[in-house]
Amino acid sequence: MKVEGTPYRTIWPAADGRAVEIIDQTRLPHAFVTVSLETVGDAARAISDMQVRGAPLIGAAAAYGLALAARVDASDAALEGAAQALAATRPTAVNLRWALDDMMAGLGQHPPERRADAAWRRAAEICDDDVAMCSAIGEHGLDILRAAWDGKDQAGCLNVLTHCNAGWLATVDWGTALAPIYKAHNTGIPVHVWIDETRPRNQGASLTAWELKAHGVAHTVIVDNAGGHLMQKGEVDLCITGTDRTAASGDVANKIGTYLKALAAEDNGVPFYVALPSPTIDWTISDGLSDIPIEERDAAEVTRIAGLTDAGEVVDVTLVPEGSAAANYAFDVTPARLVTGLITERGVCEASAEGLAGLFPERK
Amino acid sequence: MKVEGTPYRTIWPAADGRAVEIIDQTRLPHAFVTVSLETVGDAARAISDMQVRGAPLIGAAAAYGLALAARVDASDAALEGAAQALAATRPTAVNLRWALDDMMAGLGQHPPERRADAAWRRAAEICDDDVAMCSAIGEHGLDILRAAWDGKDQAGCLNVLTHCNAGWLATVDWGTALAPIYKAHNTGIPVHVWIDETRPRNQGASLTAWELKAHGVAHTVIVDNAGGHLMQKGEVDLCITGTDRTAASGDVANKIGTYLKALAAEDNGVPFYVALPSPTIDWTISDGLSDIPIEERDAAEVTRIAGLTDAGEVVDVTLVPEGSAAANYAFDVTPARLVTGLITERGVCEASAEGLAGLFPERK
Repeated sequence: MKVEGTPYRTIWPAADGRAVEIIDQTRLPHAFVTVSLETVGDAARAISDMQVRGAPLIGAAAAYGLALAARVDASDAALEGAAQALAATRPTAVNLRWALDDMMAGLGQHPPERRADAAWRRAAEICDDDVAMCSAIGEHGLDILRAAWDGKDQAGCLNVLTHCNAGWLATVDWGTALAPIYKAHNTGIPVHVWIDETRPRNQGASLTAWELKAHGVAHTVIVDNAGGHLMQKGEVDLCITGTDRTAASGDVANKIGTYLKALAAEDNGVPFYVALPSPTIDWTISDGLSDIPIEERDAAEVTRIAGLTDAGEVVDVTLVPEGSAAANYAFDVTPARLVTGLITERGVCEASAEGLAGLFPERK
Repeated sequence: MKVEGTPYRTIWPAADGRAVEIIDQTRLPHAFVTVSLETVGDAARAISDMQVRGAPLIGAAAAYGLALAARVDASDAALEGAAQALAATRPTAVNLRWALDDMMAGLGQHPPERRADAAWRRAAEICDDDVAMCSAIGEHGLDILRAAWDGKDQAGCLNVLTHCNAGWLATVDWGTALAPIYKAHNTGIPVHVWIDETRPRNQGASLTAWELKAHGVAHTVIVDNAGGHLMQKGEVDLCITGTDRTAASGDVANKIGTYLKALAAEDNGVPFYVALPSPTIDWTISDGLSDIPIEERDAAEVTRIAGLTDAGEVVDVTLVPEGSAAANYAFDVTPARLVTGLITERGVCEASAEGLAGLFPERK
């Protein structure tokens, strides 16, 4: 997507082919800074320090990390060590492991002297594959947005509510939930996005707001409490969120608070869509509510928040009185019954075992 | 309620009878500071600067403001001027006008030389009446909490979720939604409160957390997004919130986000109660959703937040990228169908026109 008119991805090879460049996402939304990763150590730090985040982007960064390692020493032992270092950066990231396994299996087919070039090519392919998948999600979602826009006789603007950040910053380009929005914007539909700030980590107020602003998509940041009121007042035409994990039943685990918006959407007859690349489907899980474990994170993410002072400095401040406990559940599960449809790279289906089996018959 | 073992109200006459003391609520939750109001100007500033807030407390402060004025000059002209100055501090506060009208009508019955003492007495009565009303709400709510506690065989603790601050800090003592919780705690029921932080002004994370901590009630601060997940997991036994305005139909307007919690409560079979002193009932409104206007406040309350730096300084920081719009709806309306019961000073009733008419037959 664009940053003030210039097209960007979240990760790209440097012009001289000796490094990889990324957007330092820890500096967003208050500063746009790109960083050059020159070694596998740089790549590992970028992942562990969350300069890159979002499952697909982490996988891409790990792949390029191995490519950087192969430039220095492409022996089996060296690559194994590099893969282990990269895998240790975010132990629970499934895409990270997948990308490393894919890279290592591919590189094992080549003699060491050819591995650096092969690694570089394969990392680029992993990025391009992710972009193609997100773009396909965007095209299928665009059909929904176009129908909604026609359904309101193209009057006013098309109001879409989203939660958290499922945009291009979490992938290599396009994003998942935001891909249809970018496609709609690019084709001239006047889309306006209500952005849940998404406490506690505020990915909506920071990342989603930043990327929509950078690309030029109209948007308004609201507190997580406000979406129900907006739906009651007819100010939301549809909702689209991403998902971290989708059960084979169509239940979706996504950022905490998604379930509350799905309830409000149902109560007000607002369609609620979830966009996902099929690798996030966990075919082994048939009951999301009982079977998807919910990560509990550091309470300090609730009690403290980072922001920009008037002096231009980013600082952490404490919000809660000393001595008060806090709890921090990272995700919730939205039952399939509240989801209007799942937008995948293969098309849109009902959020149900039957719906998913129809799109992915090889999984039946 | 108690502050680290010492009983307090939010407003009380100084020992020498020449001033009124308050808790400076702008310093909470990071500092507990009391302030002495010695003139009507002090009282007006305390209201307009929100050192005192919450409808009943604002009314009480205005009443004491007139008493302070009467000490200096109890002529009709002087009191009229004082009343006008106090009324101008928060133009939309209904309790403020009510208290001033009540005081002025009463003082008009006395010759000027007796007005100061009469004003002092009447201000104290207004405070005591509010305390009695909140205490009665607490007693009726306690019956509900006791039944819930017995209903879970007194196992573990009784988990109550609340939103915003409807505690003693918003009244003279006890509060509304928190009154039953204090009564339950004081009678030995091991109540634990899930506190929604209540963005954008964070009254939950700051004021509710502070007052429960100060009195010694177990609590955990959560982001507004988390309540639905907790209800899905059976971690909430019931919800109690306050309300700013109750329609004669039982629809309740309360802090933005209340509606989302009521939806989650219904979806999970969790009772959802609203506590209110009867003066908040607007008998002229029969459809809360269409007839209660929702205040839209300064977007800066969404884009900025105040917190304590590690250096011990309270600062405002910006959360949203420069150039992103924000919107700030202060309240939402929870339809009566989602409310299990209304807890009033006269007892508990169904959230419906019939339920309210049963408790307040004189309004039929």
